[in-house]
Amino acid sequence: MSEASFFTDMLQSITDRGRQLLFSGSRTPQVVAEVDLRELCEMLLSSRGEASGMALAAEILDRWGALESVCAQSFLSMLHEQFGPDTARLEQTIEHYRTDKSSAAVIALHQAAEPRRQELLRRLNHAPNGTARLVRMREQLLASKDRSAEYHALDADFTHLFGSWFNRGFLTLRPIDWSTPAYILEKIIKYEAVHEIAGWEELRRRLAPADRRCFAFFHPRLADEPLVFVEVALTRSVPSAIADVLDEGRAQISPDEATTAVFYSISNCQDGLRGISFGNFLIKQVVDDLRRDLPGLKNFVTLSPVPGFARWLAKARSSAPDSLLSEAARETLMRLDDPNWADDDDAAAEVERVLLPLAVRYFLAERTPEGRPVDPVARFHLGNGARLERLNFLGDRSAKAMEQAHGLMVNYLYKLDDIVANHEALAQRGEVIASTEVRSFLNQNGDGRRADNRQQGSRPFANIMNSTLGGGRK
Amino acid sequence: MSEASFFTDMLQSITDRGRQLLFSGSRTPQVVAEVDLRELCEMLLSSRGEASGMALAAEILDRWGALESVCAQSFLSMLHEQFGPDTARLEQTIEHYRTDKSSAAVIALHQAAEPRRQELLRRLNHAPNGTARLVRMREQLLASKDRSAEYHALDADFTHLFGSWFNRGFLTLRPIDWSTPAYILEKIIKYEAVHEIAGWEELRRRLAPADRRCFAFFHPRLADEPLVFVEVALTRSVPSAIADVLDEGRAQISPDEATTAVFYSISNCQDGLRGISFGNFLIKQVVDDLRRDLPGLKNFVTLSPVPGFARWLAKARSSAPDSLLSEAARETLMRLDDPNWADDDDAAAEVERVLLPLAVRYFLAERTPEGRPVDPVARFHLGNGARLERLNFLGDRSAKAMEQAHGLMVNYLYKLDDIVANHEALAQRGEVIASTEVRSFLNQNGDGRRADNRQQGSRPFANIMNSTLGGGRK
Amino acid sequence: MSEASFFTDMLQSITDRGRQLLFSGSRTPQVVAEVDLRELCEMLLSSRGEASGMALAAEILDRWGALESVCAQSFLSMLHEQFGPDTARLEQTIEHYRTDKSSAAVIALHQAAEPRRQELLRRLNHAPNGTARLVRMREQLLASKDRSAEYHALDADFTHLFGSWFNRGFLTLRPIDWSTPAYILEKIIKYEAVHEIAGWEELRRRLAPADRRCFAFFHPRLADEPLVFVEVALTRSVPSAIADVLDEGRAQISPDEATTAVFYSISNCQDGLRGISFGNFLIKQVVDDLRRDLPGLKNFVTLSPVPGFARWLAKARSSAPDSLLSEAARETLMRLDDPNWADDDDAAAEVERVLLPLAVRYFLAERTPEGRPVDPVARFHLGNGARLERLNFLGDRSAKAMEQAHGLMVNYLYKLDDIVANHEALAQRGEVIASTEVRSFLNQNGDGRRADNRQQGSRPFANIMNSTLGGGRK
Amino acid sequence: MSEASFFTDMLQSITDRGRQLLFSGSRTPQVVAEVDLRELCEMLLSSRGEASGMALAAEILDRWGALESVCAQSFLSMLHEQFGPDTARLEQTIEHYRTDKSSAAVIALHQAAEPRRQELLRRLNHAPNGTARLVRMREQLLASKDRSAEYHALDADFTHLFGSWFNRGFLTLRPIDWSTPAYILEKIIKYEAVHEIAGWEELRRRLAPADRRCFAFFHPRLADEPLVFVEVALTRSVPSAIADVLDEGRAQISPDEATTAVFYSISNCQDGLRGISFGNFLIKQVVDDLRRDLPGLKNFVTLSPVPGFARWLAKARSSAPDSLLSEAARETLMRLDDPNWADDDDAAAEVERVLLPLAVRYFLAERTPEGRPVDPVARFHLGNGARLERLNFLGDRSAKAMEQAHGLMVNYLYKLDDIVANHEALAQRGEVIASTEVRSFLNQNGDGRRADNRQQGSRPFANIMNSTLGGGRK
Repeated sequence: MSEASFFTDMLQSITDRGRQLLFSGSRTPQVVAEVDLRELCEMLLSSRGEASGMALAAEILDRWGALESVCAQSFLSMLHEQFGPDTARLEQTIEHYRTDKSSAAVIALHQAAEPRRQELLRRLNHAPNGTARLVRMREQLLASKDRSAEYHALDADFTHLFGSWFNRGFLTLRPIDWSTPAYILEKIIKYEAVHEIAGWEELRRRLAPADRRCFAFFHPRLADEPLVFVEVALTRSVPSAIADVLDEGRAQISPDEATTAVFYSISNCQDGLRGISFGNFLIKQVVDDLRRDLPGLKNFVTLSPVPGFARWLAKARSSAPDSLLSEAARETLMRLDDPNWADDDDAAAEVERVLLPLAVRYFLAERTPEGRPVDPVARFHLGNGARLERLNFLGDRSAKAMEQAHGLMVNYLYKLDDIVANHEALAQRGEVIASTEVRSFLNQNGDGRRADNRQQGSRPFANIMNSTLGGGRK
Repeated sequence: MSEASFFTDMLQSITDRGRQLLFSGSRTPQVVAEVDLRELCEMLLSSRGEASGMALAAEILDRWGALESVCAQSFLSMLHEQFGPDTARLEQTIEHYRTDKSSAAVIALHQAAEPRRQELLRRLNHAPNGTARLVRMREQLLASKDRSAEYHALDADFTHLFGSWFNRGFLTLRPIDWSTPAYILEKIIKYEAVHEIAGWEELRRRLAPADRRCFAFFHPRLADEPLVFVEVALTRSVPSAIADVLDEGRAQISPDEATTAVFYSISNCQDGLRGISFGNFLIKQVVDDLRRDLPGLKNFVTLSPVPGFARWLAKARSSAPDSLLSEAARETLMRLDDPNWADDDDAAAEVERVLLPLAVRYFLAERTPEGRPVDPVARFHLGNGARLERLNFLGDRSAKAMEQAHGLMVNYLYKLDDIVANHEALAQRGEVIASTEVRSFLNQNGDGRRADNRQQGSRPFANIMNSTLGGGRK
Repeated sequence: MSEASFFTDMLQSITDRGRQLLFSGSRTPQVVAEVDLRELCEMLLSSRGEASGMALAAEILDRWGALESVCAQSFLSMLHEQFGPDTARLEQTIEHYRTDKSSAAVIALHQAAEPRRQELLRRLNHAPNGTARLVRMREQLLASKDRSAEYHALDADFTHLFGSWFNRGFLTLRPIDWSTPAYILEKIIKYEAVHEIAGWEELRRRLAPADRRCFAFFHPRLADEPLVFVEVALTRSVPSAIADVLDEGRAQISPDEATTAVFYSISNCQDGLRGISFGNFLIKQVVDDLRRDLPGLKNFVTLSPVPGFARWLAKARSSAPDSLLSEAARETLMRLDDPNWADDDDAAAEVERVLLPLAVRYFLAERTPEGRPVDPVARFHLGNGARLERLNFLGDRSAKAMEQAHGLMVNYLYKLDDIVANHEALAQRGEVIASTEVRSFLNQNGDGRRADNRQQGSRPFANIMNSTLGGGRK
Repeated sequence: MSEASFFTDMLQSITDRGRQLLFSGSRTPQVVAEVDLRELCEMLLSSRGEASGMALAAEILDRWGALESVCAQSFLSMLHEQFGPDTARLEQTIEHYRTDKSSAAVIALHQAAEPRRQELLRRLNHAPNGTARLVRMREQLLASKDRSAEYHALDADFTHLFGSWFNRGFLTLRPIDWSTPAYILEKIIKYEAVHEIAGWEELRRRLAPADRRCFAFFHPRLADEPLVFVEVALTRSVPSAIADVLDEGRAQISPDEATTAVFYSISNCQDGLRGISFGNFLIKQVVDDLRRDLPGLKNFVTLSPVPGFARWLAKARSSAPDSLLSEAARETLMRLDDPNWADDDDAAAEVERVLLPLAVRYFLAERTPEGRPVDPVARFHLGNGARLERLNFLGDRSAKAMEQAHGLMVNYLYKLDDIVANHEALAQRGEVIASTEVRSFLNQNGDGRRADNRQQGSRPFANIMNSTLGGGRK
């Protein structure tokens, strides 16, 4: 921390001197105050001195930080409208390129086509604390309702720059435990996004026991801010319910006895870095760390929520009758409309028989327009090379999980030797890898009966899905 | 170090698995061996899987590392010829842009104009140790004799990417002293570029005494490699000769007694990072550090070589007679042709009278085509906001200094309150800031006598100097 | 922490092997279990092998740790009775000494007179975690009601050994702040002995703000256990009430603005180390640290409780009428018996007039049988070289402070240049150093009126006290 | 380092103030200068103030440090003569004890019998840098020729105090490698006592390769001074010659391939701590460390010199003819008198046949008056629980080794499961444990012929030695 803050101090002192200079002489503060943000941005882009540049960057970001939210939105629009590419120059380089296709001409064209705001953002990044403030700026962009071309053009610039600045080579993995500084720990409480941490006592239960671990990625320019963290339980078997993992009264085990590392919560901390992926790397590095430390560990699995399932199912239920759901299944699923269905063992058993095959379909066959799994958590782990290992009916009875997934949880399995192949299977062929157990549900129809084998023989996957999951139809 | 090496290990293990996969199946190693580097690069650019991408990157860099130097040159040419922009796509986006000037169209144009090797280099950077190897790749590029369009196009890409990866926000300042790990210290011996360090004993004399300091910048992806370092002597006055600073028998002082910090050697360590500037930042951060640590320090100066002076002077002496040198001065300077001139007090005194005003001209009036000071060290410090403070005749009698600068050294002064103004003066108005003492030489003619104003009318040097810098006349 | 725990692991592994050996062969565990603790102690004293010694030590401490509290008391008695000096040998060396007064004879005598339990404790100390367990053993000793010769003899041994093991040269000062590991912080909450910390949020308010500091001493063999810690507030004036310091809503200041460091809470953490003094050293080292860090600090004061005052005053009030209290004063003090006296401004004003001069007497004139100040906190700070600077009437209105000191707090002043002289004044001449302001109360009689000057002229200090503070009597 | 030096600074500042006070007032520096050291020591013993005590301690040690070596010797004598026990008080407590045998009386006796210099040394230890200076004081004591009662009495006090201060619980193990601070490394060069390190390049060869390790013990009050260190080679077999280990051109191996850790050099660094044993602990902790780090390691052996062998053999050769050496053996051994004997293969072969059985006798049967092995290195490793594993004829051909041991080296084996038993065997029964291979030499007589088996049947060990090694006699 001290290094980071020292560096920040130093930047501040150079910046303050720059500002003095910048705003001295004829320009009174009054005058400067009237220079608007757009004009300051133009000054920054044309400034040649390093110190005055830093001063301008700091001034711009300070003013931006003080803007009301509506004005902040206007600032973004201004970036789009005023700091796109220099059109005149672009036309000119295009003209030139027509007659001279040399590499110099292409370079000129490339540079002319670059939105001027890219260089502007690079220069803003040099201000004290610049990176953190630009991350917040993108957070504002993402938070806006707007999804116009403007939005996409701006976000392309942020994504391009952040991808370079947050290059994974710069990320540092640090264990988070009961010996971690309190100012980091309070952020873990704040950022936990999957299973809420109620306070310091609960945090202690998650971090202090010898059979619990936590790891986070940090970045040198956001020194005290975790980017993403994962909570791990060391166990002797693959857990099927989150309550078992979080139970206050559970029996602790010695790490040496553990055979299984369970990743039961992964939280991204910085909204402004959405889509700049580190999580996949985090898990692989943590697996490696744990294996080194505890050679007895054989299985690396998650215990994960299925946040998109209930919404998907609701849509299926409201669709036309000749869809994937049999009448019988539809009827059974009406039990879900009773808020206490899970407490009724018979109801739960009935629901289970119908729900699990549907869930398998949700994971294995449903795709986004881009051809990726529809469930965001599945997208992450499967894209990461994990295998869908097990479905856990009523694995999480919290209100949130009942609402989002009718209580369903799943385990994804990270098997180091298969990660590459699994990942490539999905990336290249769009194929989701699942365990035999999960795939066996494909052999059950919506009524929970084993489907007719003949139909399944050599048919491609999608057909199997139709005939089995939707198979009640006939 | 351990963190960096751990990360490298982990990358290695993912990479090895990727390579297995990549080169398994139908492709035997034999076949793979026949796939040429260009083809591998195309595969890398089109690969979608992360692990296979990393494997390819590693394979490419391994093969590149094994190339003979001639072939390495061909590799660079291949990058230029084969991995420029996709011309067809570029033409197409240009066509499209003519009818649709939307931001989406510009983004497409911008992306199409980007040389494909930029993305290729980005992906190579993900290989284990990728950054260090790309730095070496640029080192090869810079070492080549070629200065064709090819060279410039390639270097533009490296410079663009390195500028982002070596963003100064990522640099870490570390003191180097007698408690520094030996594997860093041996690099200080190796990289010292100004006043050679003969071995560990001499290194100890430069680092261990309480009145000596050294600082270096490091980067997280080149963890054990200093990028640039500066050696500092704490003294009670501004030294005029390097021998006084390096003298084995000198009397040490307590840091608390020191009033002056002398930066007497600054060395860049990585040839492949030439032009990616950190040195200016280094000095400012070190000044800040020292001020904090030792409030008694009042002056921050350098004791610097003048590496381009002798060459410039030789050229001046060989120029036509009606140039900046009077006949008398030319005659005096012939003494320099006697290798032992400096040992002859009379000769030295005569030379001094002529040499110093010429040196002032060299610093203050001479400019590169881009309008910058011609001396590279001057360019660095003056561009950095320092002031030319004092000329030290025969400040360094080492063979190297006698050859490069007839023994001349200078002090540049870093005055924190003036750094910004000095820097801006040079950056915006091309003006070199010098002390009154230095400027006073402008009032002397080449014979060391105070110049008669009449004489200067049409004379090159002193006149120019007078009329511009001392231009109060008329 | 890791180093300490590694060392402990290693000890454990050697110990386990030793135990195997020790208890192998003819002696079955059953037999061993029947060997009683006394016998094991004898075995330990006579053992020559290092490993078996460590095993025995561990076995003894494990068993001791499992004893019920009554038995633990018996264990201490056993140490006293069975492991005193070897009387026979002592008599013998005395006999020998009568005829041979050589230094060898004296050494023999010295060794024979040493209680055998000293060597026993030294050997127990080699067990894994031995030091911490012996500290707990002394805690048990101190907790016993017994104050017989046995108690004193045992405690003399512990004190002698701990004095050597907890040599202040081994203590490490560490700042405690919001970046401190949580497992240390939870101990700060637990051990705070002066102004209770209600939970993590309050802890945060005491540690995180830039104008708050905390420091603790640690010892290498009790690695994660603070021995003593001090909480510091940085302020712009000397505070007179603890509520101002702890106020949630107070305005924070920048450390650079602070002129005053207030030590407002000092807590010893280890009961078993009572009387092994580190606190004095702590304050001096913290003063030095703060001065280095914040040159703007001019005053180093405490804001301290007066824990013995109310008890002392009650005794004085219940003494015979011809004591130090005038009838009028006694009457005024009856107001204290109303639990809400402090809320009544008139009552409070009356009480103040009587109470403060009495407090000055309490501090300046009252002495323990050993001639030291009676108030334990005063004993600490005055013995430490501080000066009694100011009395703060109703400085702490908490229930505890109202009960112990009728709300009184005081400031002690640490002035570096006077510490030695103040300390020596008390240590050599028994003189308490107080500020002029405090001493001015000596000129007031119990009724708050200035006393008659004549009486005070040239009399020694103790007399003055009698004649003035008790002077109302006559 | 910084912590240690900060602490020292702080002590210094308190001490300086104490000295001011101490030597102010009536006592002018002149007067103080005339107070002799003895008087200052008396003042220190009677001082009650902490600060003045520290000042006195510093003054005494400063003056002592400035003494010529003869005077330093007198200082030690003075300690003995003037600061023994208080005889009058001792007589008195003895008298008292005759009538009152209470524990209080024994404590009084114990305290009275303690030499006053013990408390004096404890107080001197509080001076800045006190511990290091007392270690040097004992170094002087040990260096003196004198072995009188005075010497033993003084050394008993130092040993008692150092045993407590250098309690192994305070020692810290640190790896020494090429990332270790240079100021530590230069001490490794200086202190290496077994196989000299010629300079930084050779040091690098011993520390930097992945198959080389080094570890040292440090103590908090001698922060930058290693106490003892061990150099380790990781190999694939047990080496028999030091040249193979130190060979510049040797093939390095990966640590993972290593099966054997060879401790080839162990050096104590502080002469003043002779006899305060840490080395045994060092090896055990290093073994533990290495096993953890490199699970592939199976053997932990030394490659050790035999420093006392040549001297012992010379004595045997010069003894009367009816000793352990046969005439033939004596004759063979005359070859050793030719300085080049080892270069003559025939001579070497002959010598080997005679030398090795004698060496076995030297290790297994010879004892000091206290019953311990005569070879100091053997004493260390065997006492430590190692087994004598192998004799290496001409294992070290350096001049030093040829002179001390006719080139003989040996391997001691550390087998974790046997360490305790081996140690106890020697400690309790005086038995040296050796491998079968080593013991087989016992079956050879001095002429290298296998001895008559009948003689060895059931005889105890010592007999075997007589009958075989001395067997020429009959």
